[in-house]
Amino acid sequence: MASSSSSDSSAPQTPQLRKDSVTNRWVIFSPARAKRPSDFKSKTPINPNQQQQQCPFCIGHEHECAPEIFRVPPDNPDWKLRVIQNLYPALSRDIPAAEEENNSDSGRVVVNGFGFHDVVIETPVHSVQLSDLSPREIGEVLVAHTRRIKQLMSYDSIKYVQVFKNHGASAGASMSHSHSQIMALPVVPPAVATRLGSMKEYFDQTGKCSVCESNSKDLLIDVSAHFISIVPFAATFPFEMWIIPLDHSSHFHELDSEKAVELGGLLKLVLRKMSLQLNNPPFNFMVQTSPLGDNASQLPYSHWFLQIVPQLSVVAGFEMGTGCYINPVFPEDAAKVLREVKVSPSE
Amino acid sequence: MASSSSSDSSAPQTPQLRKDSVTNRWVIFSPARAKRPSDFKSKTPINPNQQQQQCPFCIGHEHECAPEIFRVPPDNPDWKLRVIQNLYPALSRDIPAAEEENNSDSGRVVVNGFGFHDVVIETPVHSVQLSDLSPREIGEVLVAHTRRIKQLMSYDSIKYVQVFKNHGASAGASMSHSHSQIMALPVVPPAVATRLGSMKEYFDQTGKCSVCESNSKDLLIDVSAHFISIVPFAATFPFEMWIIPLDHSSHFHELDSEKAVELGGLLKLVLRKMSLQLNNPPFNFMVQTSPLGDNASQLPYSHWFLQIVPQLSVVAGFEMGTGCYINPVFPEDAAKVLREVKVSPSE
Repeated sequence: MASSSSSDSSAPQTPQLRKDSVTNRWVIFSPARAKRPSDFKSKTPINPNQQQQQCPFCIGHEHECAPEIFRVPPDNPDWKLRVIQNLYPALSRDIPAAEEENNSDSGRVVVNGFGFHDVVIETPVHSVQLSDLSPREIGEVLVAHTRRIKQLMSYDSIKYVQVFKNHGASAGASMSHSHSQIMALPVVPPAVATRLGSMKEYFDQTGKCSVCESNSKDLLIDVSAHFISIVPFAATFPFEMWIIPLDHSSHFHELDSEKAVELGGLLKLVLRKMSLQLNNPPFNFMVQTSPLGDNASQLPYSHWFLQIVPQLSVVAGFEMGTGCYINPVFPEDAAKVLREVKVSPSE
Repeated sequence: MASSSSSDSSAPQTPQLRKDSVTNRWVIFSPARAKRPSDFKSKTPINPNQQQQQCPFCIGHEHECAPEIFRVPPDNPDWKLRVIQNLYPALSRDIPAAEEENNSDSGRVVVNGFGFHDVVIETPVHSVQLSDLSPREIGEVLVAHTRRIKQLMSYDSIKYVQVFKNHGASAGASMSHSHSQIMALPVVPPAVATRLGSMKEYFDQTGKCSVCESNSKDLLIDVSAHFISIVPFAATFPFEMWIIPLDHSSHFHELDSEKAVELGGLLKLVLRKMSLQLNNPPFNFMVQTSPLGDNASQLPYSHWFLQIVPQLSVVAGFEMGTGCYINPVFPEDAAKVLREVKVSPSE
C-alpha cells in the first residue's frame, strides 16, 4: 500500500525556492524540516463510519434544509444528489448588486455582498464519502457543479464562481455528510487574478499555455485518456495534487458528461491514493477555472484544473506575513510516492 | 471584563466586500455566519501553566540548542533573552546565494534556498508568556529583533526579513516556551510586494500614506504617545489587530529603544485584551515592514506595523481557491468590543 523509501530520488537535499508559472507563488522546499516523504501521515484522520442521527443532508430530512435549486434525478424522492442554498450564506442573493463604491480619499473600497452560496449534497447516505462513489456518480457531482455555474452565469454582476469541497472538521467542514460548495462572487478574486496574470506572462514569453506545459514525467502521478494527475512543480502544500485536462480548455463548466465520468474516475483514484498513503487526511479540493463574461483574450492562456490539498500542516505566522509557504516535501518525491501507491480494485 | 453587546453598533447587517488600501485584499464580511462579536471565544485556549521537563529553551539547557547569535545581557549565564539559530532551519546559511535560475522554456523558476532562520527565546522561564513580561522586557525583545535585522542587512542577497511569532500548537508553534522567529529571505515575498504595490497606488492617487490614514475613530482600540492599536478596515481575520507607529516610518528596524518600551506596553495591552476577551486563543504576530537595500523611492508610502491575529477560524477551500477571506465580524464591532475590555493593572 505505501511506497518504498524515496532515498533514490533525484530531488535536491538542500533548501530551494521555486516559483510556479501558474500560481506565481514562491514556495520554500526545505528537506531539513522533513520526515521521509513516505512517512507523512495525517494525525487527525477522518473516521469514515461517523454517524449522525440529526443530519439535515440525509435523505428524508429535506425539510430541514434551505430551499432546493435542483436534484438528480429531477422530481424524484429517491434522489442521488441535491443542490441547495446554504442556510448560512456568506453572500446574499437578496440585496442589490451595487457598483463598487471607491472612496479614494479614505482608501475604503466597498462592494455590496451580493452573490450566491450553494451546497451540493453529493450522496443521500450519511456514511458514504465522495471517494466511495463510482466514477459515474462522481461524474454526476461534477456535472451538477457545471450545471449550476451555467445558471449563475446569467447574472451579469457575477464575475467568478468558486467550486470547492472541505472534507473533515480541521479542513473547514461544519457538516460531516459529504458535500461541496459553490460560491458566485461579484469580483474576480485576488488569487484568480494573480493566476491569470502569471499564465498570461508565460504565454507572452513563450507562446505556450503554462498548464499544458505542466505535463512533466517526474511530476506525473496517473493518466487517463483526457486527464493527468500531477504534483505541481512548486506545490504550495505537501502532497498537493492537480488534475489537468490534456486538451487546452479555459472553463471547467464546459466539461461534457462523458469526460466528467472519466474525470470522476481519476479523482476517485487520487482520493483513494491520498487516503491510503496519508492516513485518510482531512482535505480541500478546489476547481481552478477562469472568470465569466467577456474574456476571449484570456482563452489562449487560461486552462482550468482541479487542485486537491491534504491537510497535513498549519498555516502560521511566516505564511501569513509573507504569502510564502514552506513545503518540506519536494514535488518529485511526492509524485514518486503517489505513483507507487497500490490501489486494489476491490477497495 | 467582556464588553457589552454591540447591538447598538453602526456596522451594516448585510454582507459586504471590502478591499483594504494597505493589503489590497478582498474580504467578505458576513454577519449571517456570525455569533455576536462579544460571543467569540477560542475553543482551543492555551494553558499558560503548561510545564515541560525537557525544554531546550529553558535556562540551563543552552547546550541542547543550535548555536547562539547573541544574548541579553551579553556574556551572562543569567540571561534574559537569547537569539539562536533554528535547529531545523527552513533556509540554509551554508549554501551559496545563487542568482535566480529562470528556465523560461519550462516555466520553472528556481533560487538556491540561501537564508537565515533564527529563534528569539523571549524569556528564560518556561511558564512565562510574552504578555507576562513588563513593557520594558517586551521592548527588549523587540530591540533584539531590530538588532538581528541590522546584522542580516549586511548580506546583499537578503531582500526581506520576516519577524513573526506563533503562540500555541494550532497557530504553528512546535515549542511551548515563549519564542519568536526571524527569517531572512533572498526574495521579496509575494504578500510584501502586493502590500507595497497597493500602498504605492494609494500614494500616487492621494499623495498620502495609506497606513498613516488608517487612524480612524471607529476602528481605534487604544493609543499611546507614538502608537495606536486598531482593527483594520478590511481585517482578513476576526479580531485581527494592527499596532501602527503614528510617525511615518518605513522600517521596523529603525525603532529606538525608548519607543520600543512604549510599543512593548501597547503590545502587552493588546495581548491581554485579546486573551481576556477571546479565551486565551492561539495567535500569530507578524512584523510588516519594508524590503531592505536600495529602496529610497518606497520610503514616502511604506509604513511598518505589527499585525496580531488570534486563531479563531480555519482557512479552508474557499480561501485557498480564491485568496479571498470570509470574516464574520465587522471591524467596527471588533474594535468596539476590544476598546471596552477592562484590563486591571494587577493582572
